[in-house]
Amino acid sequence: MEIYKNKASEWFKNLRNKICNCFEEIEKNYSGNMTTLQPGKFQRKIWERPGGGGGEISIMRGRVFEKVGVNYSKVYGKLSPQFQNKIPGAAKDPTFWASGISIVAHMNSPHIPAAHMNTRFISTTENWFGGGIDLTPTFPEEKETSFFHNELKKICNTYNAKSYEKYSKWCDDYFFLPHRKEPRGVGGIFFDQLNCGNWEKDFSFVKEVGKGFKNIFPKIINNKLNNTWTDEEKRKQLIKRGRYVEFNLIHDRGTKFGLETDGNTEAILMSLPPHASWP
Amino acid sequence: MEIYKNKASEWFKNLRNKICNCFEEIEKNYSGNMTTLQPGKFQRKIWERPGGGGGEISIMRGRVFEKVGVNYSKVYGKLSPQFQNKIPGAAKDPTFWASGISIVAHMNSPHIPAAHMNTRFISTTENWFGGGIDLTPTFPEEKETSFFHNELKKICNTYNAKSYEKYSKWCDDYFFLPHRKEPRGVGGIFFDQLNCGNWEKDFSFVKEVGKGFKNIFPKIINNKLNNTWTDEEKRKQLIKRGRYVEFNLIHDRGTKFGLETDGNTEAILMSLPPHASWP
Repeated sequence: MEIYKNKASEWFKNLRNKICNCFEEIEKNYSGNMTTLQPGKFQRKIWERPGGGGGEISIMRGRVFEKVGVNYSKVYGKLSPQFQNKIPGAAKDPTFWASGISIVAHMNSPHIPAAHMNTRFISTTENWFGGGIDLTPTFPEEKETSFFHNELKKICNTYNAKSYEKYSKWCDDYFFLPHRKEPRGVGGIFFDQLNCGNWEKDFSFVKEVGKGFKNIFPKIINNKLNNTWTDEEKRKQLIKRGRYVEFNLIHDRGTKFGLETDGNTEAILMSLPPHASWP
Repeated sequence: MEIYKNKASEWFKNLRNKICNCFEEIEKNYSGNMTTLQPGKFQRKIWERPGGGGGEISIMRGRVFEKVGVNYSKVYGKLSPQFQNKIPGAAKDPTFWASGISIVAHMNSPHIPAAHMNTRFISTTENWFGGGIDLTPTFPEEKETSFFHNELKKICNTYNAKSYEKYSKWCDDYFFLPHRKEPRGVGGIFFDQLNCGNWEKDFSFVKEVGKGFKNIFPKIINNKLNNTWTDEEKRKQLIKRGRYVEFNLIHDRGTKFGLETDGNTEAILMSLPPHASWP
């Protein structure tokens, strides 16, 4: 298991580097109407978890990416009694280990969707992967949405023929705001407690998800990289982001779990948009 | 009890009218650098609760008040089984009745604190009042804070000599963000399950709280009514408002209760600021 943990954790860290480089390239390639701003660069901040382990937050505030956070973490220790019953395999033994990468990108252009990607490996007396990719456009476009879902379907098909149906439904169910009776975005894929008994197979799928994100999201961005927008479109983006805040603070399990277990607040709330409104 | 319910509910509605008029007057009296905008006027929206009763939202977007919401409600019916054990006196009988007024004011000027006031009367097999007033400045000023607390102390002293100490501590404990290790604002008073056995005495205190807010907050506003501010001060106000959003969506019991019991989302989230940031 130690070998598996290291392999997963190293891979997440490496993916973090690749994605940060890729996003910095996009910043450099930009030639739209915000070129008075310098291309953004990631700033990195290391944090330690009092109970064991820690992570690295990378944040970039640029001209394409209004705010994008990439968090890599590797944490371990013992779960508090109140959480032992909430985490699979922890009831018998509170020892846990978890590593993952989490990305949330809020874009300057209201025409480019906000994007979220996460993959993680968790180990208690049980071991599993979890993760997903989902998109939150202010102005959903059918062509973009179907391109996105088709790419995700291809990734899921590398795992098995039924995963796309399962994981895209899971995503729709998860990213839903009941108090607004509306979805957070246009869906994507979401999976948890992935363990088919063949670690390499699961890991291989998780790698496809990570690489897939690095492949798909830049294509979506580049389609509209230098397009302009109106104040009214920006205003609508900020309202849509208000819903994003509502979802993350009221419903998101990761956020809740993090805050209730004294996680790193800055890393957990990195996902919140730079500006949001409730006019 | 029906007479008491009507008396409380009518009084809350009447206070709503007085406060709305008072805030509209402030809008008219303004002569600072935002006079290109028209003085704000409250817009009213009636909502019905599917299970019984409803309320009236009054919202004003003005030049002094960037966004202020005043919600009056009178709701009744039966609590769902999951909430019967959370509400005093409801375990034996799920029938409930509740009426109240709730105000949240977010000001254009970063020098004028955001303010919150709420009073309510709730009846199950038990009956009680609850409420409070608290202030959230971006830039706390000792003189303003002590004026505010002194006025609240006078109000509490009309009830009994120990209430200020008790209710101001309760307020500090309640409006605290554990994940930020910081208070939401500079406190105020907070009380719940108020029932000394003499309904008229409790009601009389609640009326003092309502009238007190209508008296104190305009004084705080008028002290700085026409002052200007810098972009940097406004930026800090938006960050402070981000914390306000975090408190309301993660911790506030009223918000949680409202959203989980299918309350009116617009009325519940009326408290959120017009703009907030997490830069």
